[in-house]
Amino acid sequence: MLAIEDLDTPAVVVDLDVLGHNVRRMAEHARASGVRLRPHAKTHKIPELGRLQLASGAAGVSLAKVGEAEVFAAAGFEDVFLAYPVVGAEKGRRLLALSDHVRLAIGADSAEGVASVGEVFRAAGRRIDVLVKVDCGFHRVGVAPERAAEVARRIAEIPGVALRGVFTHAGHAYHAGTREEVKAIARREGEILASAAESLRSEGLPVEEVSVGSTPTARGAMSVAGVTECRPGNYVYCDASQVSLGICGIEDCAMTVLATVVAVPTADRAVLDCGSKTLSSDPLRPRPAGHGWIVGRNSRIERLSEEHGVVRIEPGEGFHVGEKVRVLPNHACVVSNLHDRVVLTRGGLVEGEWTVAARGRVR
Amino acid sequence: MLAIEDLDTPAVVVDLDVLGHNVRRMAEHARASGVRLRPHAKTHKIPELGRLQLASGAAGVSLAKVGEAEVFAAAGFEDVFLAYPVVGAEKGRRLLALSDHVRLAIGADSAEGVASVGEVFRAAGRRIDVLVKVDCGFHRVGVAPERAAEVARRIAEIPGVALRGVFTHAGHAYHAGTREEVKAIARREGEILASAAESLRSEGLPVEEVSVGSTPTARGAMSVAGVTECRPGNYVYCDASQVSLGICGIEDCAMTVLATVVAVPTADRAVLDCGSKTLSSDPLRPRPAGHGWIVGRNSRIERLSEEHGVVRIEPGEGFHVGEKVRVLPNHACVVSNLHDRVVLTRGGLVEGEWTVAARGRVR
Repeated sequence: MLAIEDLDTPAVVVDLDVLGHNVRRMAEHARASGVRLRPHAKTHKIPELGRLQLASGAAGVSLAKVGEAEVFAAAGFEDVFLAYPVVGAEKGRRLLALSDHVRLAIGADSAEGVASVGEVFRAAGRRIDVLVKVDCGFHRVGVAPERAAEVARRIAEIPGVALRGVFTHAGHAYHAGTREEVKAIARREGEILASAAESLRSEGLPVEEVSVGSTPTARGAMSVAGVTECRPGNYVYCDASQVSLGICGIEDCAMTVLATVVAVPTADRAVLDCGSKTLSSDPLRPRPAGHGWIVGRNSRIERLSEEHGVVRIEPGEGFHVGEKVRVLPNHACVVSNLHDRVVLTRGGLVEGEWTVAARGRVR
Repeated sequence: MLAIEDLDTPAVVVDLDVLGHNVRRMAEHARASGVRLRPHAKTHKIPELGRLQLASGAAGVSLAKVGEAEVFAAAGFEDVFLAYPVVGAEKGRRLLALSDHVRLAIGADSAEGVASVGEVFRAAGRRIDVLVKVDCGFHRVGVAPERAAEVARRIAEIPGVALRGVFTHAGHAYHAGTREEVKAIARREGEILASAAESLRSEGLPVEEVSVGSTPTARGAMSVAGVTECRPGNYVYCDASQVSLGICGIEDCAMTVLATVVAVPTADRAVLDCGSKTLSSDPLRPRPAGHGWIVGRNSRIERLSEEHGVVRIEPGEGFHVGEKVRVLPNHACVVSNLHDRVVLTRGGLVEGEWTVAARGRVR
């Protein structure tokens, strides 16, 4: 049987034992909190991994793009939430086709945005479920909490639209300075969304789903009264950013990149065959500091070109040309999108591979 | 005929007129300087575009990975230089198979690195051509100029290896503060490499090729006496970084990303459906400043998530949900690697598409 170190490089390696543990643990948290788990499958983009999540109790998956939903639907997934403001008639037509076989919902933060999709469904005598995005502090998309009911009413009045609830995402947790700060953001995330849900209900609007997100805030936000669903994504793999945030340890990270030292031009510099084409240029969170940790070493990848990971060698650490090392990426989700396949391993041995079937579905 | 604005988004759009102009202009510079042009096709990863480059006079292509060479060889390319320190017997075996049909060379900056590939060729009674990488100031891979002859001798002595020459890449030009500084780096690039070539010749080592690289430094470096080949890549598309460096104007940029405004949550914030999954997180060069220019506007993409480009709206500029805009990316090469296809346009109309056939070939 092939050992990990026998693989040609660079290779994205997934430890199935760690992955299974991560999948089960989050499912147990959701069960204990009495909320539905709807993992954001954009992290892995792999139907086989999504099926593991369903088998452990997930109610369905979250995705961002219609093309990702098409891949997962073709693989048999029957309940998909596109946690994204889907805009445009072309995407509406593809969603309509999907809705024959899939329980679908999309996100929206404006009546203008969702109207084009709603019109496609209205013309077909159908309705698309919509969750209104509420901004709990990330300031990306989403309506301010105090305007949630007003916007939700306008969305609910669009022919072809059925209001299913509200959702949010505390992406600002990735910029938190301490674990205590992450916890405070998580609680606020749940409280703001639950309160927004109440404001909708007080105006007679239906709110079946109150859905929070993000791996760092998942446990805290899902424990807030009124929250019904949680959508963490990264937890299946974890990465150097989750470790830096104090969410997990290095031993909880299921994805690493096997790389080869291709050059040691100077005593303090080594070059790995994993650059931004393999790791992406995404910065470490919460504080940018290099581009990947070398497992078992103190030396870090200091800068990236497309095919080069330039390591500053810490005093006392040796690197030699041809040696293979394991790199823990800053951000696992973006690594998934760069690779057609991941290698599956257990106990250091290769067991097979998965195709990243929904990779690159930008539309 | 479909207009660009009728495309669903996000979409990578290539203007064939601008592209053709860029391809011809660099070929003319090389002809005028009396050097061979060997464009780095990692920028586009598209055999059809590579054929345009050959048709305009390029002598062959540069690539980084064996998998890219396999794609281009299958498309009929017969002369490929892997401008990268290729390491390992597995890659050596694939190169040996390629060498039946392709004039091949690889880069190396150490005898240790190239020995594994050399051994595969030796065992087959063949030799692999090698160019020794010289560090002209970028400090990534490459031997210091004063050590070039010593390392080249050790590499030339490896059974299965044939020394073809020397090469360099002035990647530090992307960090230059002014266009004058770029020009100075270009001249130094050519001079350092030509001098290194002389140091090899003075020790009796064969130097057929003296190859410089990079789009910003191409014209300056190729005009230095002794340089025989130039390997610019980005010039076919150009991007916001080339414009920022003063290498070209926005009108010279052939690649843009068509995107839709999916949200305008506040008066000073709009969100586009192009995030790091579409544009990559690569910073603007030479000075990081946002993640993409919106053509015809002053507003810039200030931050990225995977599927969101967050625009800070400049006073007086309007954005409305559903509107489509064109984005000039920071770095065109990495955009190529994120997309399976690019859309071909001329005069604002869609003429077809190319498959990015060598996308994602990490090994």
